Amino acid sequence: MMELHFLGTGSCYPSPKRGASCIALRHENAGVWLFDCGEGTQIQLQKSEVKPGRINKIFITHLHGDHLFGLPGLMCTIGQNNLPEEKRIDIYGPRGLGTFLRTSLSVSASQLGYSYCVHEIVESDSPSCEISLDSDAKLHPNEIQPPRVIKMSKPNKWQICESAGLKVDAYFLEHAIFCVGYVITEDSLPGKLDPTLLRSMGIPPGPLYGKLKRGETVLLEDGRVIEPSSIVGPPRKGRVLVILGDTSNSETMLPAVKDVDVIIHETTVENELETLAVERGHSTPGMAGKFASMINAKMLIINHFSQRYKALDSELKEGDVSVTKLLEQAKECFTGEVVAADDFKIVSIKIPQ
Amino acid sequence: MMELHFLGTGSCYPSPKRGASCIALRHENAGVWLFDCGEGTQIQLQKSEVKPGRINKIFITHLHGDHLFGLPGLMCTIGQNNLPEEKRIDIYGPRGLGTFLRTSLSVSASQLGYSYCVHEIVESDSPSCEISLDSDAKLHPNEIQPPRVIKMSKPNKWQICESAGLKVDAYFLEHAIFCVGYVITEDSLPGKLDPTLLRSMGIPPGPLYGKLKRGETVLLEDGRVIEPSSIVGPPRKGRVLVILGDTSNSETMLPAVKDVDVIIHETTVENELETLAVERGHSTPGMAGKFASMINAKMLIINHFSQRYKALDSELKEGDVSVTKLLEQAKECFTGEVVAADDFKIVSIKIPQ
Repeated sequence: MMELHFLGTGSCYPSPKRGASCIALRHENAGVWLFDCGEGTQIQLQKSEVKPGRINKIFITHLHGDHLFGLPGLMCTIGQNNLPEEKRIDIYGPRGLGTFLRTSLSVSASQLGYSYCVHEIVESDSPSCEISLDSDAKLHPNEIQPPRVIKMSKPNKWQICESAGLKVDAYFLEHAIFCVGYVITEDSLPGKLDPTLLRSMGIPPGPLYGKLKRGETVLLEDGRVIEPSSIVGPPRKGRVLVILGDTSNSETMLPAVKDVDVIIHETTVENELETLAVERGHSTPGMAGKFASMINAKMLIINHFSQRYKALDSELKEGDVSVTKLLEQAKECFTGEVVAADDFKIVSIKIPQ
Repeated sequence: MMELHFLGTGSCYPSPKRGASCIALRHENAGVWLFDCGEGTQIQLQKSEVKPGRINKIFITHLHGDHLFGLPGLMCTIGQNNLPEEKRIDIYGPRGLGTFLRTSLSVSASQLGYSYCVHEIVESDSPSCEISLDSDAKLHPNEIQPPRVIKMSKPNKWQICESAGLKVDAYFLEHAIFCVGYVITEDSLPGKLDPTLLRSMGIPPGPLYGKLKRGETVLLEDGRVIEPSSIVGPPRKGRVLVILGDTSNSETMLPAVKDVDVIIHETTVENELETLAVERGHSTPGMAGKFASMINAKMLIINHFSQRYKALDSELKEGDVSVTKLLEQAKECFTGEVVAADDFKIVSIKIPQ
């Protein structure tokens, strides 16, 4: 199971119709990982199927308030759940994240009831954030250590973490402030059993199928030894998911990122406003569609809409424009599947056949 | 016009049914003043009649997240409005508030488009907040100066500000962390005209009435000189409004606070849970009613309900308890008018006759 739950799909600020940025990734092994955490995320979570207590990693693309300001409140509310004693949340994002969280939780005297650790992505050649990140600073009682620093591993690329069969990398994106996009790559999946071959060899369906699928050699009652390689196809490529932060140029991820299952790309405003969009560090559906084609994506999900765009199914009054316009513009530039995000939409990412 | 707009009436965290703490005071001369600013306040404002651009003062009772974490986002969103060039917001609250706001706005590179100034209420004999408040710290570009410090003027009392015919004082309240209640005292109002007397003297209704009411001497066409004191009653006492933060003991305000028009008192849980409530720094309706009687209040508004209590008009399922229970318990201990707050409720405070 690998599901995307869109918890906030609006840009700039949260509104009653569209929350500020947050996407939850639910995965059978990984639990729940959040991507961005705008103000009101904890309210959106209460309206969703996602359980806050299951969150164990939070990835922040950049430190603008509409992607960040829900984090301290969410951290406090997670602590209201019945949590295992060893509960820990790892949080990844640009430099300054640790200070923001420590200050917020300290002045509010928040007691979390679990541990957290911040890992900061550091630009290689830019001045550091003006907020002091002194390692002598007094930690919050639930903070495991001062922020760990993640340095660039290749041009524009940071290796973020590997956990539960998923690898996460970050890539630099052009925006008004330092911003990254996250690429989540699933480990190879076991090959598929060939049931026709199995039946022709007289092997009955049952627990033996599971053993072979897991790569175990099987001894049949008649003495035959069955090697999984003779019956199971080659390992299959895991799914690849790209979740971008705000950007006026995602091509900074090229050529490293290619052949992905799903890309979530911001499309803050329509194509006609491209000059303004780029000036402010944002993208249009045309730009998102073009990039999805360049990286050979199977599915493009457009996201992060100016609050002026009404939801897909709204009744429109004169002068109203809806996300339908953005969706159609994206489809003009990308021949794969295109989906428009919306608050509480769930997209299931299937294993490719 | 003096109106209270309840924007968030829930305790601990914001929910889809009940926002985190925030009350807006609308006043004909003062504009809009906010009291506390929990996460999601800017979303609640969008659902209300209160215009964010009119906010010019924000008072924070204490730094717990459910009273504070909406502040940075609200500050950013206020900047999206069309504001006068000299726009400025003054923010009052406990020590640590300035650092929280500066850190939040700085790491997020927020540009407000107006100025703000933080005034910190300092306890006299307790250690300062562990967050550094170094006056050399780099200010946010929209910050007017490092936090001004407001020191205790009398035992348990701080003189906060005087503006637009309203005086604000803060009083110490017992709670889990440093917390105050605010007392808003309106200047004396002009006396009322005696229309019967005016008619008997042959003075026709019209602009002369206004002049007399404003305290101006009037020369009639027939040569008579009318002094306002002969026609206008004595100045009337202005309205007094008390807005408390969270507390397990509001009697720390005695004997200074007395004879008030409206008191807003937290009643987090029902009377049966008083021991637990006090342990956690909170009050019950019984405690609120008793205090409202002690200070000779005309009206008690109960507020800040545990999210377990359903709204007054909800359909209850088995096991549900609604705010009705809290309201009835408060009425048992207070003979004046009792009102239960609810999100988006508006209470108009009339000039006493």
